[in-house]
Amino acid sequence: MKIESVDLFYLSMPVVTTEADGSQDALLVRVRAGGHTGWGECEAAPLPSIAAFVCPMSHGACRPVADSVLGQTIDGPDDIARIARQVEYDSMDLLQAPHTWSGIEMALWDLLGHARQAPVWRLLGYTASHKKRPYASMLFGDTPEDTLRQGQSARAAGYGAAKFGWGPIGRGSAAIDADHFAAAREGIGPDMLLMVDTGQIWGEDVEAAALRIPALEAARATWLEEPFHTHALAQYGALAQRSPRVPLAGGEGAFNVAMAEHLIDYGRVGFIQIDTGRIGGIGPSKRVADHAVAKGITFVNHTFTSHLALSASMQAFAGLADHRICEYPFQPKQLAIDFVANPLARDAHGEVAAPDAPGLGVAVDPAGIRRYLVETEITVGGRILYRTPAID
Amino acid sequence: MKIESVDLFYLSMPVVTTEADGSQDALLVRVRAGGHTGWGECEAAPLPSIAAFVCPMSHGACRPVADSVLGQTIDGPDDIARIARQVEYDSMDLLQAPHTWSGIEMALWDLLGHARQAPVWRLLGYTASHKKRPYASMLFGDTPEDTLRQGQSARAAGYGAAKFGWGPIGRGSAAIDADHFAAAREGIGPDMLLMVDTGQIWGEDVEAAALRIPALEAARATWLEEPFHTHALAQYGALAQRSPRVPLAGGEGAFNVAMAEHLIDYGRVGFIQIDTGRIGGIGPSKRVADHAVAKGITFVNHTFTSHLALSASMQAFAGLADHRICEYPFQPKQLAIDFVANPLARDAHGEVAAPDAPGLGVAVDPAGIRRYLVETEITVGGRILYRTPAID
Repeated sequence: MKIESVDLFYLSMPVVTTEADGSQDALLVRVRAGGHTGWGECEAAPLPSIAAFVCPMSHGACRPVADSVLGQTIDGPDDIARIARQVEYDSMDLLQAPHTWSGIEMALWDLLGHARQAPVWRLLGYTASHKKRPYASMLFGDTPEDTLRQGQSARAAGYGAAKFGWGPIGRGSAAIDADHFAAAREGIGPDMLLMVDTGQIWGEDVEAAALRIPALEAARATWLEEPFHTHALAQYGALAQRSPRVPLAGGEGAFNVAMAEHLIDYGRVGFIQIDTGRIGGIGPSKRVADHAVAKGITFVNHTFTSHLALSASMQAFAGLADHRICEYPFQPKQLAIDFVANPLARDAHGEVAAPDAPGLGVAVDPAGIRRYLVETEITVGGRILYRTPAID
Repeated sequence: MKIESVDLFYLSMPVVTTEADGSQDALLVRVRAGGHTGWGECEAAPLPSIAAFVCPMSHGACRPVADSVLGQTIDGPDDIARIARQVEYDSMDLLQAPHTWSGIEMALWDLLGHARQAPVWRLLGYTASHKKRPYASMLFGDTPEDTLRQGQSARAAGYGAAKFGWGPIGRGSAAIDADHFAAAREGIGPDMLLMVDTGQIWGEDVEAAALRIPALEAARATWLEEPFHTHALAQYGALAQRSPRVPLAGGEGAFNVAMAEHLIDYGRVGFIQIDTGRIGGIGPSKRVADHAVAKGITFVNHTFTSHLALSASMQAFAGLADHRICEYPFQPKQLAIDFVANPLARDAHGEVAAPDAPGLGVAVDPAGIRRYLVETEITVGGRILYRTPAID
């Protein structure tokens, strides 16, 4: 099959706020080849990602992503890996390229799965899609009382685990943060898993992060996520040594396999969290999962958008029975709900698995896309390089 | 002073080819505040970088660069550092943001230098701008004979050092590469410094790179540059151990200080090469120079575009008398020549220094910009977010 078209769709809620909620907009990718269609989703700023697909070439190592994709042969997983290498090399100086490519890569796997009538996890070599324990992913409240109520809502919704992120943590004293950690534990009760995500708030300040460890231990946190910025490997490593009972988690910012491996090897995280919509798609995610297995740490997906992204992000560790935790969008914006016709429902035990269906097993609803579509046009030197494509 | 405007200008040669020559297009930045003007240059794909400046916000950690810059106070270097931190945090999920910000940061230093009537290197705390030994930066020929002639031309032009890059190296056998290395040495003669840049051609393949070390030793190469991709820290470290006489060089892909520090600390490079137009500008470049001094390795600029970028990239190590080598665009495209009114000329000894003049000491020629300006327009949801600004 030849890749005939790659179409990018920019969706947005009518109002986008500063809350750390990645489901407020979306960049969907539709790929067509050999009479088949595949869908993917970039976890990325839509406009710069579109620009990275259509921009004029700057030089041989700064080419638009489109040049490495359109017209290529796609008959099997090796073709996807080959195209990925070409994107990596020919767009090495185009920083945004991996975010753009991630959604395309997913769509190519989806397309290949439809062509072969096989789920993607089977194309990756797995023989089963194991159930995962989803955690409700939500933001800390403005006050400990709000955080407590958030925890109660996750518990009432039947989750076995909950993650609290961002909000006021790290912006005031360690004592205030401790109140939030305790409130989160009180809200979810004694039996649920509790994760804490601090959204890079301490930058490179190991001491500030270390101050919070006792309260996290007292709240029996399963992990402390993203204390530092994505590239702060030495700081991750230093804090990991000082926190023997609360492992670190991170990796969502990784946009290639090496970055994730460094967080494991140098940063000593106990949980590596991969966003398939950023790291270059499903193939690189699987390579990180293999590395996690080899190093005896746990792979977790990072997903804060739609169930299309959720299915894509679950493929890489679907076959790993012991890697049980799964991020599950708990309160996404309506946009992320409306364009997915068949979300990944939790079963009677509250568990979820990558679908046993061709491709990613997620049907896209054109009406849901149309509702949030943002008309976009880019003209360079008198030529229209991009115009929102038709959805049908 | 308040930052009143940030204008981005996309320049391009009429024809852009696949050669690895970054001077075929340019993204210039003009900043205005308090009646002063500053200029900078991103070493980046213009269209995605413009998009990263103007795009709608996706969420609180994925905001356009413009939101962190416009209207800010700029009275001293601390303000530049403060704005840099805000860009880093508020645009953490916008991958292209550091490339966009780099040119703006340069322009802010230029503006500050004009306001204070001081060169930027003095604002950085240096008391002198030491002469550097520029190397002619050029590409390997298609054949060893072409490479030899390239070397002869660099020698005839009076350079004391030459760097050969890309071309056929790594695409054929080690024996062919050895012929090129020997031809380069023969072309430049016995006394000039010889550097070799292999443009990431071996990806992560340490064995393939190690095969070339004996021929590099025989040609008395000063360094082997970019054997692997930017994030291949473990591979850099492994090759460095196997190449005691030819140190490694790298770092041009670093878009933050941590990445450069990792190449030094984990990758064990002997020369850290920083592109000020990518790493976030002059402030981060200076931090890397400080780290290089502390670790006893050598700082070198990476510059393959204009003399505006050259001056900006020389500021960070202008005051380091012992860090003598300087990349100097040898055969840039006419575009990069035409918009700079006063290039950094080599003196009678063939040496060059960051100008002892206010700001970056480089005057921009509006007529030279106009000649290559690419009219660009971006419309999202019926609103024009970007239209090529007027140049006057």
